[in-house]
Amino acid sequence: MAEKFVSERNLKFMLYEVFKAETLTRYATYSEHQREGFDLVLETALKLGRDLLRPALMEMDQKPPRFIDGEVRVHPLVRTWMRACGQGGWIAANAPFDLGGQQLPLLITGACRFIFSAANYSASVYPLLTSGAAHLIESFGSEEQKEIYLPRMFAGEWQGTMALTEPQAGSSLADIKTIAEPTDKGYYLLRGQKIFISASDHDGVDNIVNLLLARIKGAPAGVKGISLFVVPKFRPERDRPPVRNDILVAGTYHKLGYRGSPICQLSLGENNDCRGTLVGEPHKGLAYMFQMMNEARIDVGLSAAAIASAAYYASLQYTRERPQGRRLSAKDPALPPVPIIEHPDVKRMLLFQRAVVEGSLSLLLHCCLLADRGRVLTGAEKEDNDLLLDLLTPVAKTYPSEMGVLSVSQGLQCLGGYGYCDEFPLELFYRDARIHPIHEGTTGIHGLDLLGRKVILKGGKAFKLFLGEVQDVIEEAGKDQTLRPYAGRLEEAIRILEQTTAHLTQLAGEGKTELFLADATLYLELFGIIAVAWQWLLQALVIRKALASERTEPERLFYEGKFQTFRFFYHYELPKIRGLSQRLLESDGLTVSMTEPLFTD
Amino acid sequence: MAEKFVSERNLKFMLYEVFKAETLTRYATYSEHQREGFDLVLETALKLGRDLLRPALMEMDQKPPRFIDGEVRVHPLVRTWMRACGQGGWIAANAPFDLGGQQLPLLITGACRFIFSAANYSASVYPLLTSGAAHLIESFGSEEQKEIYLPRMFAGEWQGTMALTEPQAGSSLADIKTIAEPTDKGYYLLRGQKIFISASDHDGVDNIVNLLLARIKGAPAGVKGISLFVVPKFRPERDRPPVRNDILVAGTYHKLGYRGSPICQLSLGENNDCRGTLVGEPHKGLAYMFQMMNEARIDVGLSAAAIASAAYYASLQYTRERPQGRRLSAKDPALPPVPIIEHPDVKRMLLFQRAVVEGSLSLLLHCCLLADRGRVLTGAEKEDNDLLLDLLTPVAKTYPSEMGVLSVSQGLQCLGGYGYCDEFPLELFYRDARIHPIHEGTTGIHGLDLLGRKVILKGGKAFKLFLGEVQDVIEEAGKDQTLRPYAGRLEEAIRILEQTTAHLTQLAGEGKTELFLADATLYLELFGIIAVAWQWLLQALVIRKALASERTEPERLFYEGKFQTFRFFYHYELPKIRGLSQRLLESDGLTVSMTEPLFTD
Repeated sequence: MAEKFVSERNLKFMLYEVFKAETLTRYATYSEHQREGFDLVLETALKLGRDLLRPALMEMDQKPPRFIDGEVRVHPLVRTWMRACGQGGWIAANAPFDLGGQQLPLLITGACRFIFSAANYSASVYPLLTSGAAHLIESFGSEEQKEIYLPRMFAGEWQGTMALTEPQAGSSLADIKTIAEPTDKGYYLLRGQKIFISASDHDGVDNIVNLLLARIKGAPAGVKGISLFVVPKFRPERDRPPVRNDILVAGTYHKLGYRGSPICQLSLGENNDCRGTLVGEPHKGLAYMFQMMNEARIDVGLSAAAIASAAYYASLQYTRERPQGRRLSAKDPALPPVPIIEHPDVKRMLLFQRAVVEGSLSLLLHCCLLADRGRVLTGAEKEDNDLLLDLLTPVAKTYPSEMGVLSVSQGLQCLGGYGYCDEFPLELFYRDARIHPIHEGTTGIHGLDLLGRKVILKGGKAFKLFLGEVQDVIEEAGKDQTLRPYAGRLEEAIRILEQTTAHLTQLAGEGKTELFLADATLYLELFGIIAVAWQWLLQALVIRKALASERTEPERLFYEGKFQTFRFFYHYELPKIRGLSQRLLESDGLTVSMTEPLFTD
Repeated sequence: MAEKFVSERNLKFMLYEVFKAETLTRYATYSEHQREGFDLVLETALKLGRDLLRPALMEMDQKPPRFIDGEVRVHPLVRTWMRACGQGGWIAANAPFDLGGQQLPLLITGACRFIFSAANYSASVYPLLTSGAAHLIESFGSEEQKEIYLPRMFAGEWQGTMALTEPQAGSSLADIKTIAEPTDKGYYLLRGQKIFISASDHDGVDNIVNLLLARIKGAPAGVKGISLFVVPKFRPERDRPPVRNDILVAGTYHKLGYRGSPICQLSLGENNDCRGTLVGEPHKGLAYMFQMMNEARIDVGLSAAAIASAAYYASLQYTRERPQGRRLSAKDPALPPVPIIEHPDVKRMLLFQRAVVEGSLSLLLHCCLLADRGRVLTGAEKEDNDLLLDLLTPVAKTYPSEMGVLSVSQGLQCLGGYGYCDEFPLELFYRDARIHPIHEGTTGIHGLDLLGRKVILKGGKAFKLFLGEVQDVIEEAGKDQTLRPYAGRLEEAIRILEQTTAHLTQLAGEGKTELFLADATLYLELFGIIAVAWQWLLQALVIRKALASERTEPERLFYEGKFQTFRFFYHYELPKIRGLSQRLLESDGLTVSMTEPLFTD
């Protein structure tokens, strides 16, 4: 299968023309890099995606991990791919040079993650989780932990995980019950259950390194009593072979999609000998884990947009090849049928997908850029930068996740009955895509995070920074006659967002917490549409400049196609904020006053 | 599995309180029936659903039909169920007494179809297809055809199908190529390929009766040259055993969902001996088939709403039992967690599902009632009645199909990670639901049907009839102080619909066909929301009256819960028309002027 799953041209447009990746190399941290190196990284990622990942896509779905004799067996690609990631430096791509990393900007590796996820989402997860877990050890672990774990994780020999969820603690991490009992030997003894832990057992690696949240015996209740531990499947010992830790894999889940990756239940300490070591200080586990979660949220957004990208190109190919029906204005049955891409409704479905994919990608790479800047800026500049990233993270996780599901669904629809059959990959993408509004915080949780935490953070400072960023783009676009009407539309949207936000935060100020947050999910939806409209206007500025100078025909088509997609977003997607804001301004407390017994019958 | 999948209370509310099923018994056709009989039919359907269909739901999905030695083997339930349907009179439920039918109103059998599909959608399809195919023979077949086929089909011994689609003719039936060559022996010899034909081969019955579209040799091009044939798998012979017809089953499709039902490819006449008999007159096949298709479209709507109903009750049960998190206004971790149904966002997801399910069901049963009236009315009254049904059919097919997918998705979301796993049936419902926007005419096709055909039918007469119906409900609701604001909202929505329709039909008048129809799918979406808002106001009138008199506590909870759901629809769903109408009034031709090369990269 050699089908297209991402647009290399568009990735380069985003990286170099919109976000000017080269400018990062002015900072000391990234000064060893240059444009040619970035290009090489991208090309290698595309090659890996095309030659290694994509050919196994459907087989990994059809042959999901098996649970045999208490161990999880995965597709043979996993081992090949993890080693390739280790050898290619992909797992340590963002890590500092002195730890064996490549010190690459997230802007570049984010683009590569997008490529890998578009090629084969399930496979892309293994190295990604390992990078995230390693980054936690890098940031908060002891020298000994770094020395023991990082080299093997970076080599793709050991798998990292992120072990948070428990049977009674999913969205509510405050309720984590896994207990860590200190011993006098430097390690802790852990006891508890973890569920839904991605890649927490498999035979594609030699060891599993769980970065795990637990509560030290006697710790305070709630999130303030949670600590972070490293709990490996095999405990490395200095002068002898590793020892199997007391972790029982209780089984894997059979899932709708995302089937190439095992999600396991773990039982810790059934024989009272599950040993782990504390990472950083006691009771700071959740704060540490948020570093990983925030990165993982951007990764989820990238993966969601990536699956939508793969679905878009699969549907685009089909609509170009499938003849059916005639033009609406020339229905003579004696005429030959036209490829369905000629039908306006099919073009609408394609433009919708492209608008979601390229709009989401823009927002996500913008977040990557903010994360890169966060590493090199200082003082007030850093504070502002990080605040904006904090605000945008729930949006950048959720918009691509929720809209990605709809986008893939439109891709499937383009194929009609064939979209429903497994001869084409659309039904697989449809199943894979549905995980994203659930994991790394459900959409509902991110609504609460955005409205209940980020928007009111530091007296609304993050929100004001966002408005300022959008206003800058509006002003710039206002100078271009063609863009001026769109700048006007975004200006109006921003006024609606301000008005809605002021209305809601006033409820918060009056202590009406439930009323304030009841429709937080819809607020997140409203915010997401406007944030992506901002990204599209940002892209349009670049497109307009590019179109002003002479171009080769393929280049002209690229920019003009993007310009039509930009217009599509403003004409078809942005108007959705009208209904949303109407609802959000009502605040009649319908879902607050609704009671459980009223769901009788 | 004894979980709830439909609300019996709500079905009775719809049938007796809103649509007053008993009043149909005043007409001669239905005069043998009475309320007690209807109740018994409903109870029997619920019992069959609960005891026979639902227990096999997950197994039929996990063990889909197998294609072995050129034959399709299905789950053993299929034979049991088809016989039960035959013996219980379900297949002939709407057929006239003199053909062995029960002459039941579609209003009642529609409610039963809703029950069966909610219990097990794949299983529900077998008798349904047989009823539809039998109805075609009943309406247009010869006495001989009726005599040969109807008794065995009604008995559930022979399966009926609807064989339209061909490799090159999916949405575009004008392109059907299967050839029927007349012979001097009274039958035709057929040659061609049919694809995506539901239940067109399986071992749960003794014969398959394909109602099949083909073109008599030399027939005119396009839809005007299509004829209808009966093409059985085994040809019944008068005095000897049936003979295998020359139909090769080329295979079954592996599908995303709807897995309990085989969808096959058929190859006709490979040995030049595929015999079929003409139904009715030559070249009228498509007009005949439309009878079946229109009924099938209402059935698809009912099935879509039914799957959403099953998903709603599954998610409702989970949200009542799953403790997680604390109230937004009382987040002390020392407090015990609350069932998630206490969270406003979860209530929002539940109310959304209920609003879609009960709003869709109302629209669909209204269409059933119109179909029943169509059988007994005459003259101008019948013409108006049938025109309204014609107009509403694409809406009643599409709204439940499209919104059903979103509704099931919200049901899945209520379960978080568990919704994504096959321990719970949500992921199955999510897969099953996705077929409905595709089969029996894709959403895009229905958009064209509604705007390009139905709305402008007879100078807009059907549309005016619809407006009149809605206006009547608005006026009635305006007399009730509590309902008045909602009547006002619907009034405003209707003005928006009129304005949008006038704008678009003006484009049609100016000959701008492509511009007129470019966003027909969005017009259908707009129309659907308003049609369901109308149905909710119709229900609200009944609810208000019921609440005015004294009620038992469960009854009061039922009506109040419904009233909250009605309010939900007006506050959360109806506002969506704002963005849609804004887009529809623009008519900038964006998707018309977009060209294929602009999708480069």
